[in-house]
Amino acid sequence: MGHTVEDIARLVGGEALGDPDTAVTGVNGLAEAGPGDLCFVRGEKYYPLLRECRAAAVLVPEPVDGAAPVQIRVDRPEEAFLRTLALFDHGAAARPAPGVHPGAHVSPEARLGAGVSIGPGAVVEAGAVLGDGVVLFPGAYIGADCRVGEGTVVHPNAVLREETIVGRGCIIHAGACLGSDGFGFVPMGGAWHKVPQVGRVELGDEVEIGSNTTVDRATFGVTRIGGGTKIDNLVQIGHNVEIGEHCVVAGMAGIAGSAKIGNNVRIGASAGIAGHITIGDGASVGGRSGVTRSVPPGATVSGFPATDHEAQKRIMVGQMRLPGLMRRINQLEARLKALEESES
Amino acid sequence: MGHTVEDIARLVGGEALGDPDTAVTGVNGLAEAGPGDLCFVRGEKYYPLLRECRAAAVLVPEPVDGAAPVQIRVDRPEEAFLRTLALFDHGAAARPAPGVHPGAHVSPEARLGAGVSIGPGAVVEAGAVLGDGVVLFPGAYIGADCRVGEGTVVHPNAVLREETIVGRGCIIHAGACLGSDGFGFVPMGGAWHKVPQVGRVELGDEVEIGSNTTVDRATFGVTRIGGGTKIDNLVQIGHNVEIGEHCVVAGMAGIAGSAKIGNNVRIGASAGIAGHITIGDGASVGGRSGVTRSVPPGATVSGFPATDHEAQKRIMVGQMRLPGLMRRINQLEARLKALEESES
Amino acid sequence: MGHTVEDIARLVGGEALGDPDTAVTGVNGLAEAGPGDLCFVRGEKYYPLLRECRAAAVLVPEPVDGAAPVQIRVDRPEEAFLRTLALFDHGAAARPAPGVHPGAHVSPEARLGAGVSIGPGAVVEAGAVLGDGVVLFPGAYIGADCRVGEGTVVHPNAVLREETIVGRGCIIHAGACLGSDGFGFVPMGGAWHKVPQVGRVELGDEVEIGSNTTVDRATFGVTRIGGGTKIDNLVQIGHNVEIGEHCVVAGMAGIAGSAKIGNNVRIGASAGIAGHITIGDGASVGGRSGVTRSVPPGATVSGFPATDHEAQKRIMVGQMRLPGLMRRINQLEARLKALEESES
Repeated sequence: MGHTVEDIARLVGGEALGDPDTAVTGVNGLAEAGPGDLCFVRGEKYYPLLRECRAAAVLVPEPVDGAAPVQIRVDRPEEAFLRTLALFDHGAAARPAPGVHPGAHVSPEARLGAGVSIGPGAVVEAGAVLGDGVVLFPGAYIGADCRVGEGTVVHPNAVLREETIVGRGCIIHAGACLGSDGFGFVPMGGAWHKVPQVGRVELGDEVEIGSNTTVDRATFGVTRIGGGTKIDNLVQIGHNVEIGEHCVVAGMAGIAGSAKIGNNVRIGASAGIAGHITIGDGASVGGRSGVTRSVPPGATVSGFPATDHEAQKRIMVGQMRLPGLMRRINQLEARLKALEESES
Repeated sequence: MGHTVEDIARLVGGEALGDPDTAVTGVNGLAEAGPGDLCFVRGEKYYPLLRECRAAAVLVPEPVDGAAPVQIRVDRPEEAFLRTLALFDHGAAARPAPGVHPGAHVSPEARLGAGVSIGPGAVVEAGAVLGDGVVLFPGAYIGADCRVGEGTVVHPNAVLREETIVGRGCIIHAGACLGSDGFGFVPMGGAWHKVPQVGRVELGDEVEIGSNTTVDRATFGVTRIGGGTKIDNLVQIGHNVEIGEHCVVAGMAGIAGSAKIGNNVRIGASAGIAGHITIGDGASVGGRSGVTRSVPPGATVSGFPATDHEAQKRIMVGQMRLPGLMRRINQLEARLKALEESES
Repeated sequence: MGHTVEDIARLVGGEALGDPDTAVTGVNGLAEAGPGDLCFVRGEKYYPLLRECRAAAVLVPEPVDGAAPVQIRVDRPEEAFLRTLALFDHGAAARPAPGVHPGAHVSPEARLGAGVSIGPGAVVEAGAVLGDGVVLFPGAYIGADCRVGEGTVVHPNAVLREETIVGRGCIIHAGACLGSDGFGFVPMGGAWHKVPQVGRVELGDEVEIGSNTTVDRATFGVTRIGGGTKIDNLVQIGHNVEIGEHCVVAGMAGIAGSAKIGNNVRIGASAGIAGHITIGDGASVGGRSGVTRSVPPGATVSGFPATDHEAQKRIMVGQMRLPGLMRRINQLEARLKALEESES
């Protein structure tokens, strides 16, 4: 605090187009920004909003006419904006002070790193290992023999069942459940017999798991989510699924057992991926798609059953036109019948 | 306790069609009712069930032949029935006695209204303010600087993250998570960089949030749910969504980031609303729809991509007939070819 | 520990095809197995994997060439495998020792059977009855007047609201919520008035409820799930639903209020069942289906609106071909027009 437009411009490698001494005290969204705030615009679409904006300064990809905030020109305004966040301590308030609250229940057989913070009602079972700086919010549950990497934050009432391994710098949001039993049953004599689920869940570094999302432990082996992958709320990941690195999985998507998802894959909201199939590196799955077959690397698919997205758009056009197509077929039949009768 | 058919008829402005001194000791469903119970029928469809019903009394829209319970004729039986519930203390048993359980963890920097009830394992962080008569069931988490309005009930293991504001008379069901981070990431150098989510969630008065539903905090600004809106279980509400007043959102629906939902909107089960679009006041969205474009006020839409519901019904008819349409096109081609050949 | 191929063969009624003295120390999946492990193959599809497998022994339906593990031939390898699990104590480690942790909150008016295990932060309200050997993991909530049958396990942070009845040998996974209010409101004077939900939830014996799944209490009467039924994660079961025995409901499926599901029904992932309809005994509902009408016993349905699965497959073929059908209709019209013009 005590930053100026000039400081910001220097930090992001941009060019101040107005008074470089303008004070900047915080960051905010374009619509929400007030005096002292820095914000950004991605492009032209947002210029009308910028012209009504009361911020102190704004990161822009090019000079914009008729806007009040001091402009700082920079190539990628959103990335530049993210770099400025460090100046203003956003989110720091939410990280509680180190220490184990007397209302927490930590097994004497657990090992805690330096500077961990454990809230009231949080539970750490025997054999669990927490890295330095781990934060467990109230009600978080860390099962026996779990390992939680340095700096990871587990939000209130999230559950890591026994033997779950979480990398460094992960965020496990409130109510998420990692390591519950996979859904495996065998029909025997008219009843469903449970297949014991004795595998585990492993998350790489910098993984984020959304609120009330569920990731099941493997039957045998590991359900794995690669480093840098971000998963939204209310997502279901079945047993023995493997997800690569730097994927994004949007809310309410479901990935059935033993599916293999490559690196840098994007899965849209409410999409479903069938069990035992493979989604290649860099592929994109549209929202609300149902993917029933493997998808090659780099492909973009959508629909149910999911197909190439460009083909799917033509299918959707066809669906919208179905009532008209039915009428046209009726007319064709009538006209053809007339012609046939005139022939005979 | 101590009520009669005459009391009930007077309360609801109805007419007793049988013995006005018949005792009524409670309320129940038509199928479940036994001696002493009052129940209701909406209309003709339920008359067969009424004829087998063993209740003491029933609210009816018109006299029904051959039914044993004493009938009370009234214009809107269901509304009348709701008005009688106050006589029988239903639900009162579920509200625990005031007081802070010694096993609760309430920050000395929190402020509690008169008559609050806080169960064991519930947590109230610093700066939180609870209105008079608030009930926190065991395991409920109220983050720093939250405000919870008078009479609101938070069920077991529900989570309100920091700065969440909840109005008066709300019900937050078990396992719901309000105020988790929105799903915002920017790709930089092959990795997803987290956009800090520093906004908050605000609920109006008399809002109900279902079990394991998630409502994300805004990136900047507010994710807002208007007064009187009722949201079912396992619903996902993204960051910066705004929902108006008196809406109903059925189970497993999802509303993506920055969508704006008007007042009195109805959203069916498992429907999805795309980000950044607007649903006008009074609109209805059918179950399992995927809404990809803004919907005008009062419209009824369904399907995926969602369109006018009447048009969608014709599309669905077309889909069901597709196998027949294919056959007819094959036949048309064969007949036309025959005709063309006979011409040449 | 101390078992041999001969012991295993005798237990499952199979035939050892190699050294009967080979030691077996545990079980594992085909892909994960190492020295000392027993695994199984269902059939031919897995023979290539078996040929790379380093297990000590494998249950096979027939002799397989070129595989290193000692083979034990048996009619149903998967069932045989399940029978061997008892020898190796899998899962036993996860069941905590009996006793009530001092950090648990058990009402003096609750009744506990012999050998129950209650973890820190778990809550048992007044009037609740826990059968012998019940396990409550940390943060589990058992509401007033609940009954939990012998040997049932309730995982961390799962919630049973008041009056919920759970049979013997059930597993309630982390974060599941049983007995939350059903979603019932009546529009009166521009607002939604809550219909009190005063019924309850009842589960038979050997039921499994997945993580973050929600089962709502009945308005009046009972929401019922029959014995032996297995429900996956993030499933929504509405008020007054009745599900029979030995059903399986896959992840993210939703069953709306008052639907009746028979015995031995299979419901696929993300399927939706409309309210007030009936699904007959032994029926199967495909993944991502939306079932809007009752389904007769034994039927297999899929799609939205769901129809007979074989008919649906033809509809899906039609959908995929829609772009081609549109072109063919255009051509038919052009050719017919030419013919008509040549006629006149």
